[in-house]
Amino acid sequence: MKIPEILVIEVNRAPGSLARVLQVVGEAGLSVESLESIHRTQDKTTWELTLEMDEDMDQSLFERINALPVANLVGISDRVFNRHVGGKIKTVSKVALNTPQILRDMYTPGVARVCLAIRDNPELVREYTSIGETVAIITNGTAVLGLGDTGPQAALPVMEGKAALFHTLVGISGVPVLVDSKDPATVIETVAHIAPSFGAIQLEDIAAPACFEIEEALIGRLDIPVIHDDQHGTAVVVLTALMNATRIAGMDLGASTVGQVGLGAAGIGISRLLLKYGVKRLLGSDLKEEGLARLEAMGGERGALPELMENCDIVIGTTGVKGLIAPEMVRKGQLILSLTNPDPEIEPEAALKAGAVFAADGKSINNVSAFPGLLRGALDAGARRFSDAMLFAASHCLAEHTPEGQLVPDPLDKSIHKAVSRAVSQAAQEAP
Amino acid sequence: MKIPEILVIEVNRAPGSLARVLQVVGEAGLSVESLESIHRTQDKTTWELTLEMDEDMDQSLFERINALPVANLVGISDRVFNRHVGGKIKTVSKVALNTPQILRDMYTPGVARVCLAIRDNPELVREYTSIGETVAIITNGTAVLGLGDTGPQAALPVMEGKAALFHTLVGISGVPVLVDSKDPATVIETVAHIAPSFGAIQLEDIAAPACFEIEEALIGRLDIPVIHDDQHGTAVVVLTALMNATRIAGMDLGASTVGQVGLGAAGIGISRLLLKYGVKRLLGSDLKEEGLARLEAMGGERGALPELMENCDIVIGTTGVKGLIAPEMVRKGQLILSLTNPDPEIEPEAALKAGAVFAADGKSINNVSAFPGLLRGALDAGARRFSDAMLFAASHCLAEHTPEGQLVPDPLDKSIHKAVSRAVSQAAQEAP
Repeated sequence: MKIPEILVIEVNRAPGSLARVLQVVGEAGLSVESLESIHRTQDKTTWELTLEMDEDMDQSLFERINALPVANLVGISDRVFNRHVGGKIKTVSKVALNTPQILRDMYTPGVARVCLAIRDNPELVREYTSIGETVAIITNGTAVLGLGDTGPQAALPVMEGKAALFHTLVGISGVPVLVDSKDPATVIETVAHIAPSFGAIQLEDIAAPACFEIEEALIGRLDIPVIHDDQHGTAVVVLTALMNATRIAGMDLGASTVGQVGLGAAGIGISRLLLKYGVKRLLGSDLKEEGLARLEAMGGERGALPELMENCDIVIGTTGVKGLIAPEMVRKGQLILSLTNPDPEIEPEAALKAGAVFAADGKSINNVSAFPGLLRGALDAGARRFSDAMLFAASHCLAEHTPEGQLVPDPLDKSIHKAVSRAVSQAAQEAP
Repeated sequence: MKIPEILVIEVNRAPGSLARVLQVVGEAGLSVESLESIHRTQDKTTWELTLEMDEDMDQSLFERINALPVANLVGISDRVFNRHVGGKIKTVSKVALNTPQILRDMYTPGVARVCLAIRDNPELVREYTSIGETVAIITNGTAVLGLGDTGPQAALPVMEGKAALFHTLVGISGVPVLVDSKDPATVIETVAHIAPSFGAIQLEDIAAPACFEIEEALIGRLDIPVIHDDQHGTAVVVLTALMNATRIAGMDLGASTVGQVGLGAAGIGISRLLLKYGVKRLLGSDLKEEGLARLEAMGGERGALPELMENCDIVIGTTGVKGLIAPEMVRKGQLILSLTNPDPEIEPEAALKAGAVFAADGKSINNVSAFPGLLRGALDAGARRFSDAMLFAASHCLAEHTPEGQLVPDPLDKSIHKAVSRAVSQAAQEAP
């Protein structure tokens, strides 16, 4: 995994000094991400040098920099960790509670009247509380990013990241909830009992197959929208990417045979949405019988990896296995999305060299594009469920807003999220 | 219950017109809270008139204003409800997520390193997430304010109010969690399973006796501080009020016989803290055997209300029953805190007239004074439990900071909450 790291280095103010430092860095096989002079004395400049490092980098770089007569490593700083100190989110009051009158209105005695109004007319909870803009972000930490089962608290930085994105991109309050259980029934009971606190529920980073059971049970039991982002948020952006990629490659997505390599949460979510979208034939491969049976129940076919590579026009990889697809397995004219992060099933360059008409990896398909607008749209519409029409509306909207040369839009462009929210909300209202 | 209501009235710009409107209001028995001119034309002024109304006010006021030749009621607005539209709190990102680099640091790929660091060293969750400043505010809605069992969602405005106060007064993130169950075992299981999400747990508005079982079980099971505010936050401010009131009345609190009328959550919490504080004799009365037995187990004595009124130097009422204490029951020289809101067991004026040396009602004893500093102090100290020393530290600190003529400090004075936080944190560190 690439990790940016910051070195703080004092370098002599003499011609060629900085070059010698950068040469050592280059010899260590590292790229410079940024370089900034942060302090100057008469004879030295202090540089902040940001590098992209590997987890297993050669620690001797530090010694080799210090061994230079012109440089002195004065510190190592880690921007990622620095930015996480104290966490990424907080709950704030919308109103400044600074006068006794405001206190009496927002708290006792005034608040009692609002409580009574909601007790007598439960619908009012959406008008007079934050619930209509609040989403629980729920995980048990069993499938965190590509890291596997980290436990719930180690997953919190991801949940806080989602909450920070909710606030920044669509103005939703995201509330991380860590459930300390791997037992699906316990997760279901726990979430169902706290569901009245929220306007919608986003399940995150829960391992398959528990994620399917949990999502299905909660959808059946609750009257608020429940979505497992790893399945459906991912499926929405992959469908967008396929809409764009097939257009570029001159292919017809509906008429294509699609191969889904890996049938975990993402693979099942993608397969389900593609079949609903109208893809005629979908083959899936996985080492586990559970995923294959689930795919068949949805109308897909099971197929071993070689068979799948031989027969499919489009191949999507979500296995978590680096280098699973050898270049010699690639069929000429194939479209390949190799989505395992950070190291794909096959590098796009290798796939293209082997004859693929189009190839991309997970870096080009950021799922931040989908979930904020999906949730905002569902809340805005007062939807009780996520329908396939809402997911398709998000995919189409994202495809329409994708700049030339990309597969999905820029995830930080707020206008995109606004458009997706509107499209999802409209789809929800048209077919509630 | 007094409710402020806003009338918008067009009044002729002629001498005496406004006086006639206010005369009608006065005749309806209502006081003017504020009056503001919001618009003027050549011949009319539009006034915003804020009144303190009773729930059961005479609706004919509106007609009588309209019947005046000089005035026209153009609208009624409700400030309390206006201020609640959309809720009182939101979750925000601490950092502006506005560049791809920040996104890479705060979300993927950077966040993965923080997750791994926490997985490998669980203590780091306090450093690199918001958990150390996040408190769950948990209720099942069974004893909301003085309103009784409203259900969980109708309690949300109170929980949001607490969260808004946490943010405003001590910078804590409060997260309302509504648990949809009256069964103590279910509440315990549910809260225990989501406890890893929070740095501390504040239980709110849960009816007795379930509140005792829930609090005790969670304290035993979790390694983060758990506190039931209705018991212990209330006890802290009542102890503060008694420290101040006995000083004013020239009494010795420790040597006094205290009568606790009403042994629900507040009454039991107060009794427990007073006995721990060293009050020699405490009599309690309640209609339910459960509360009486609980009091005896703590070292108090049971006593019927007349016996209690006859024998006690200090009487505290927390029954929810308006007018329970008749003036003729008051003993000369008694100190009476009649805390039921909005209508006390005995009005302070009536108690004083009947011979009490000191009397106050619940309006003078705002429990907003205690809970923010209790939680902030516990979190700052990294305390795993609330100890009695921490509660006493809060009471002493509040007593020291009480202005002359008051029983507890001004709840909106942030310096007080800072002082309480420090005192509680210090007590936690001295006797962990």
